[in-house]
Amino acid sequence: MDVFVYGKRQPLPGGFDEFIAVDGTAIVSIDLHQGHLADTPDCPCPAPRAREVVDGVNRFHAAARRLNVPVIHVKSVVRADGSDDIRGIKSAWRYVFPLFVGPIPNSDAHALEGSRWTQFVTQVDARDHVVDTKKRLSAFYPTDLDFLLRNLGIRRVVLNGCMTDCCILNAAFDASNLGYRVTVARDLVRGTNAEMEDAALKMISLHIGLVAESDDLIAEWGRQRQEQTAGAPALRQVAARG
Amino acid sequence: MDVFVYGKRQPLPGGFDEFIAVDGTAIVSIDLHQGHLADTPDCPCPAPRAREVVDGVNRFHAAARRLNVPVIHVKSVVRADGSDDIRGIKSAWRYVFPLFVGPIPNSDAHALEGSRWTQFVTQVDARDHVVDTKKRLSAFYPTDLDFLLRNLGIRRVVLNGCMTDCCILNAAFDASNLGYRVTVARDLVRGTNAEMEDAALKMISLHIGLVAESDDLIAEWGRQRQEQTAGAPALRQVAARG
Amino acid sequence: MDVFVYGKRQPLPGGFDEFIAVDGTAIVSIDLHQGHLADTPDCPCPAPRAREVVDGVNRFHAAARRLNVPVIHVKSVVRADGSDDIRGIKSAWRYVFPLFVGPIPNSDAHALEGSRWTQFVTQVDARDHVVDTKKRLSAFYPTDLDFLLRNLGIRRVVLNGCMTDCCILNAAFDASNLGYRVTVARDLVRGTNAEMEDAALKMISLHIGLVAESDDLIAEWGRQRQEQTAGAPALRQVAARG
Amino acid sequence: MDVFVYGKRQPLPGGFDEFIAVDGTAIVSIDLHQGHLADTPDCPCPAPRAREVVDGVNRFHAAARRLNVPVIHVKSVVRADGSDDIRGIKSAWRYVFPLFVGPIPNSDAHALEGSRWTQFVTQVDARDHVVDTKKRLSAFYPTDLDFLLRNLGIRRVVLNGCMTDCCILNAAFDASNLGYRVTVARDLVRGTNAEMEDAALKMISLHIGLVAESDDLIAEWGRQRQEQTAGAPALRQVAARG
Repeated sequence: MDVFVYGKRQPLPGGFDEFIAVDGTAIVSIDLHQGHLADTPDCPCPAPRAREVVDGVNRFHAAARRLNVPVIHVKSVVRADGSDDIRGIKSAWRYVFPLFVGPIPNSDAHALEGSRWTQFVTQVDARDHVVDTKKRLSAFYPTDLDFLLRNLGIRRVVLNGCMTDCCILNAAFDASNLGYRVTVARDLVRGTNAEMEDAALKMISLHIGLVAESDDLIAEWGRQRQEQTAGAPALRQVAARG
Repeated sequence: MDVFVYGKRQPLPGGFDEFIAVDGTAIVSIDLHQGHLADTPDCPCPAPRAREVVDGVNRFHAAARRLNVPVIHVKSVVRADGSDDIRGIKSAWRYVFPLFVGPIPNSDAHALEGSRWTQFVTQVDARDHVVDTKKRLSAFYPTDLDFLLRNLGIRRVVLNGCMTDCCILNAAFDASNLGYRVTVARDLVRGTNAEMEDAALKMISLHIGLVAESDDLIAEWGRQRQEQTAGAPALRQVAARG
Repeated sequence: MDVFVYGKRQPLPGGFDEFIAVDGTAIVSIDLHQGHLADTPDCPCPAPRAREVVDGVNRFHAAARRLNVPVIHVKSVVRADGSDDIRGIKSAWRYVFPLFVGPIPNSDAHALEGSRWTQFVTQVDARDHVVDTKKRLSAFYPTDLDFLLRNLGIRRVVLNGCMTDCCILNAAFDASNLGYRVTVARDLVRGTNAEMEDAALKMISLHIGLVAESDDLIAEWGRQRQEQTAGAPALRQVAARG
Repeated sequence: MDVFVYGKRQPLPGGFDEFIAVDGTAIVSIDLHQGHLADTPDCPCPAPRAREVVDGVNRFHAAARRLNVPVIHVKSVVRADGSDDIRGIKSAWRYVFPLFVGPIPNSDAHALEGSRWTQFVTQVDARDHVVDTKKRLSAFYPTDLDFLLRNLGIRRVVLNGCMTDCCILNAAFDASNLGYRVTVARDLVRGTNAEMEDAALKMISLHIGLVAESDDLIAEWGRQRQEQTAGAPALRQVAARG
């Protein structure tokens, strides 16, 4: 299987079974909701580049479900009265992002509980899991994502969604610090701009985990499932241990 | 005061008192120890670019102490028997960083409790605080840094140390998610290379907090302390609230 | 104001302003929902003694709102598919509580998302806050309660609800460890039986915080609010510091 | 194997393999240090009843090591300058415990880093692990105990030490909420007095986990090890899954 090391495609050497074993793996899809993706002027926190990945994410998730890889959708939801964001300790991006992009007209509506801005754009299957208490950039704090992963017996996560240079990168740091093996699906994440996307993936490849194409992950997992069916036990044992 | 937004120096507009108020601010200096900075072939996790900031960090800390801004030194220490790293869930960088830089000869010795690799290179004053249970990329998990900051009544942190594109960036994410206002001292952090340093600072300026020169921070804090002495109460009140 | 020390009523001496200052205080009401309180044979996790406190809790909350003390309602909700409880790492009480009380007929339905068992029995006002990701005995892990309290600027919590000897006691431990000052409203908590209620309150009074009557808390807070109106600043300053 | 349910000894029925499987089990021994156990007038936080368990704990640990069950010693250590306790957010017990026991002469010295009050009274073997950042009643927050347990692959913990009605009980709550299966070694814990010890063990048996004699645990684990040697795989499989 190929991975991208500092932006350069190359074959993954041996010794990475803890990262790529299909058993114990879950997909964590981050913030692919209307609040980032809506193509309307009132979109409260636009991440327009991420619209490009929606179809690919849906296909990736469908393929993963067929291989019995669970899919977890994480989304930002803050209390409707603003008590844990704009009327509390206001999210830092509300201060600093406008210094770069200028005023964001409807940003106060971002992630408000009960609003359309919390609706997923990607397909959520009945078998999937949802974490809907993301409040800031992290998918882990103060959510129950780590708790859910423990309950599911997950040891490895594959990330997709937006934005590469903030919430994806933050989730990659957190997951890795907590002991999960991390892979980022390079073609299924988008960020502020091409420069930041490229840099975030480079950082991940240097310090945190693997960066790979989603098709290559599906192919690798499919191969493992076939071996399991055929009785070859090699990677299964890794999964049980890893 | 000037800050750097996506790499561009510009004056900080109003509305950022929560970030720059001197009261309630602490400096968090990350991993400026022999394990990264030693200029010997057995340095277990070399971050040679960070050697450049040691003198500047010492001066910054000295000036901060004179302004009654507490200094917290964080360092990586893992158990000497390897149980929480190389013989446990091995740090992810041990897998992926060598894909970029090649084998790291003495990396197994990194951060081992009791070894010289855990000795600070920067000066630690009797008034300073030390957090010595950093285990992975985060300065917050699984350490007591947040607990210490709560006990000190801290609301704002200024980060320096290494490496910009992993542990500094990770600490910036964590601190911000926990509700602390974050500033990174641009001249006092170093990373993997110039490209990654530049990109990490851009990400911080977009999503997390302020990026500023250490001299400008000292000047701003000094100005506030003088105003306080003169009895002008403006920023004091912010500090009490913020 | 009187408190109960190891079950014995006595006047609270000086030096406890950090615990009783009305500013910075929030009420945390735990698990007063149908899943514990329903008086039907299919109640999945019966805590029948707690039915006695519902009216008192409602009165306490109403009085607190008039004094601008925020009310936070915490409830247990687990995923409807059982993935984070009965089909995951099953809650420990499911194993051990039946050793004492015998089989609990409908216990698998406890706290299932979307079921009536997650409906509050107590009144939830539009100004109140709800934390609905309690999964186990703790009100803090893996919920966003601490995050919410930070955002609200809360330093002191007053607990009511059920059960005294598990979730109330657990919340008291957690809140105290996190640096909040804890008071338990003695008349507004109920547990497994009188012996366990009495013992849990004794433990709290020994190690964690204050045990007091709800009426005495309201009276104390009302007195402070009157003093504030009258301009007496004493406890206000404590609240700002504490 | 027998357990104690609400204080009554009875045989443990089937279905508790997740609790008693020897593989994946660690012993967590809490706060058996001079600060609690010293029999001198300057003992800063006396827990005299716990002196009774020291010999038994040493024997239990020795037997456990022979069965390859890891032993983790947790102790309270706060910064020597008081910044994270008496000069920070002072531990709650410092306020409330004296209401019951009267003034505690040398309590300010409790757990001070570098002092004799942080020395273990029990034997610490070279194979054991030490967690020395306990700051309040919890053995988990803000320490790295959960991180260590994850790295060791631990799923079950057996608690001993002091005090039953505060730090042991708190650790039992935390461990259970985090998904670990909990057993308390009934004969190897001591608390404030007999009433509180009895009540805490009852609470644990109702809501959290098993209460058992240490000799019975050693016998059960020994039996399992013998079966493993003999090739009987039953509980091994549980351990791998559980």
